[in-house]
Amino acid sequence: MTRACIVSIGNELLNGQTVDTNTAWLTGRLAEMGIPTAACYTMPDEIEEIVAALAQAEVRADVILITGGLGPTDDDLTRHALARFLGVELELRTDLLQKIEDFFRIRGREMVAANRVQARLPVGAQALENQIGTAPGIRAEKKGTRFFCLPGVPSEMKKMFDLSVAAELQAFGSDQVVVSRKLRCFGTGESNIAQMLGDLMRRGRNPLINCTCGSGVITLHIVATAPSRAEAEGMIGQDRTRLCDILGDLVYGFDDQTLAEVVGQELIRQNKTLVTAESCTGGLIGKLITDIPHSSKFFKGGWVTYSNQAKIRDLSVPTGLIETHGAVSEPVAIAMAEGARKTGQADIAVSTTGIAGPEGGTEQKPVGLVYIGMASAAGSGGFRHVFSQDRATIRLRSALTALNHIRAVLRD
Amino acid sequence: MTRACIVSIGNELLNGQTVDTNTAWLTGRLAEMGIPTAACYTMPDEIEEIVAALAQAEVRADVILITGGLGPTDDDLTRHALARFLGVELELRTDLLQKIEDFFRIRGREMVAANRVQARLPVGAQALENQIGTAPGIRAEKKGTRFFCLPGVPSEMKKMFDLSVAAELQAFGSDQVVVSRKLRCFGTGESNIAQMLGDLMRRGRNPLINCTCGSGVITLHIVATAPSRAEAEGMIGQDRTRLCDILGDLVYGFDDQTLAEVVGQELIRQNKTLVTAESCTGGLIGKLITDIPHSSKFFKGGWVTYSNQAKIRDLSVPTGLIETHGAVSEPVAIAMAEGARKTGQADIAVSTTGIAGPEGGTEQKPVGLVYIGMASAAGSGGFRHVFSQDRATIRLRSALTALNHIRAVLRD
Repeated sequence: MTRACIVSIGNELLNGQTVDTNTAWLTGRLAEMGIPTAACYTMPDEIEEIVAALAQAEVRADVILITGGLGPTDDDLTRHALARFLGVELELRTDLLQKIEDFFRIRGREMVAANRVQARLPVGAQALENQIGTAPGIRAEKKGTRFFCLPGVPSEMKKMFDLSVAAELQAFGSDQVVVSRKLRCFGTGESNIAQMLGDLMRRGRNPLINCTCGSGVITLHIVATAPSRAEAEGMIGQDRTRLCDILGDLVYGFDDQTLAEVVGQELIRQNKTLVTAESCTGGLIGKLITDIPHSSKFFKGGWVTYSNQAKIRDLSVPTGLIETHGAVSEPVAIAMAEGARKTGQADIAVSTTGIAGPEGGTEQKPVGLVYIGMASAAGSGGFRHVFSQDRATIRLRSALTALNHIRAVLRD
Repeated sequence: MTRACIVSIGNELLNGQTVDTNTAWLTGRLAEMGIPTAACYTMPDEIEEIVAALAQAEVRADVILITGGLGPTDDDLTRHALARFLGVELELRTDLLQKIEDFFRIRGREMVAANRVQARLPVGAQALENQIGTAPGIRAEKKGTRFFCLPGVPSEMKKMFDLSVAAELQAFGSDQVVVSRKLRCFGTGESNIAQMLGDLMRRGRNPLINCTCGSGVITLHIVATAPSRAEAEGMIGQDRTRLCDILGDLVYGFDDQTLAEVVGQELIRQNKTLVTAESCTGGLIGKLITDIPHSSKFFKGGWVTYSNQAKIRDLSVPTGLIETHGAVSEPVAIAMAEGARKTGQADIAVSTTGIAGPEGGTEQKPVGLVYIGMASAAGSGGFRHVFSQDRATIRLRSALTALNHIRAVLRD
């Protein structure tokens, strides 16, 4: 089976100046074509180190994509390193020189001498056309392994890959296609999901099921390898059904669906309206809901009642309730939701009140303690949560958990 | 000279699912300490491949940072690979097990059996404390080379690096220190700033000044290389003064300061309070303001008036004003701000009303048209903006621009 390696070249990738986004893009494209990536290497602008990475890549892969180091300056050494690795010299290709000169002439700019190096290729290599920059890419072969050198600038790299590399690689992928789909879950931890799925997550299974998480959203990636896209999709479909059966209501959506999106769709479907009453989340729930186009169809608005005064004035929370239980309490969360639902004349209201930190926590009410209130035709209720990590995470998890409570209300 | 290598582990980094941002962050931190990174490796969740990368890293570096693969599931194999590489067994550390059990108990959740593996360390290795997650990190040594295994989740990784790794590495700092500081600007475009700075942004200058931008915030990076941190800081200080002189009020802050943070500090300093009245931003301004700890000192709350009804009910916007000018208009933006300031009894009120898209635009009122209203003791005013790109960008730029208008009011 064809496998790929990626070698990224550039000092800027090794000193924190630049986040390498090329690798994720390329590995994603390769996966779609059915070519798994075995490993990636990030190397400095040094010939010996680039050669060392090519040697490592050669034993793991038969397609090696190299990005960066094709520019005109002294620290652009990819062409030199590839020539050294292949055991050949660089030769000046007059046809390429002409193209580079044309590139500058058309733009009314003068070509500096430094650009001449971009017309040099390892003997026996082919140039890959660059439609939007000066540096041509390089294609070479060694004992059946194919090497493609692409520019480091993401826009040039992507264009060159699509134009001059994709078609050649597509031919390999045809016998094995890798298709990946996501299942989005909310309401429990990663380890609990792993336990529920048990053997389904074992290594080497096809489809492979793996798990990533962020801010309480657990994403299950179902990655199927099959001779055709149709077969892979079929395998994924079967697994998806099976996972949904096991995980039940923990699954809220597929692929890139957000909780807010799913909640919004369900509100529209049920023809119900929503209002929000936010304290510790400070507008974040409203923000997440209105991220969605057409949210005005179901979202009637909200209150950011960051002070007790605002809770009393806008949401009619009884002063005595705050005095007795404190603003961060279940009764206040419920009163906030009830007040918002009444004033906002909505079907469903959700509220948050909590301690997002970093200060303000006590032993009884620690940082991370958040009460979520819900009010609907079915009645009112409060939910106590303790979230960990930092202020941003506590707030985001509070907002997402509030959306998940709305989802539960809509389900019942 | 001390050199580092980074080994990133995870199939999700090799199939396009996840962009590796940890590597850039770590190499940046290492560079600040004067430790260059020799190479980076991205490896799949396979023990043999991780061991192979460690062997490659070992010949290049004496500090090896490994991220990812410390979770509780079967595909988390970093601890196993490190043990194999070191030629030792994994042992269960009861003190770590206790900590993991405590982590779950405090949060009222049950620990599943899978989490036990996180208490296993290679014999002779030390645990690195994880303050915000279950997986402890691992520190080990082999013939003078130090290995640090950190979580793959960026927030956990960064916290653990700062808490348990940075101090040990700081001691190695080399003879050339690279220090980087940021200047944050808002209110004009990247090319305009580049023109204002001219020759100061030339390549090869020390400090090097370069520019990145996102959502209207222009960040100038000042990167100084010098024999000592003090000298580098001095060079940066001089440049910073010079840039501030040239750019004036366009500069809103330094390093990682956000507009909301700067506005909040100034409100506290001037002992003034703020309320928000948001339509098209749907809570985002409130979210950005309450991202800041202690925002309750100046933020009295806000209204998310997503419907005309809510604008009239909560902010006393005259019905006739909406009928005459439409909800997306300067008079309505001003009325929203004035209503919010009065009801909320605050010194300053800011409002937004606009068309975030993707639909709802007309020739007169295109998608991206946003009015921002301001009300303060100095009077009221409205500002018309037309932002481009997608819904998320239009909303974020609207919210940031609103914050920038508050900054202007506080300056006058």
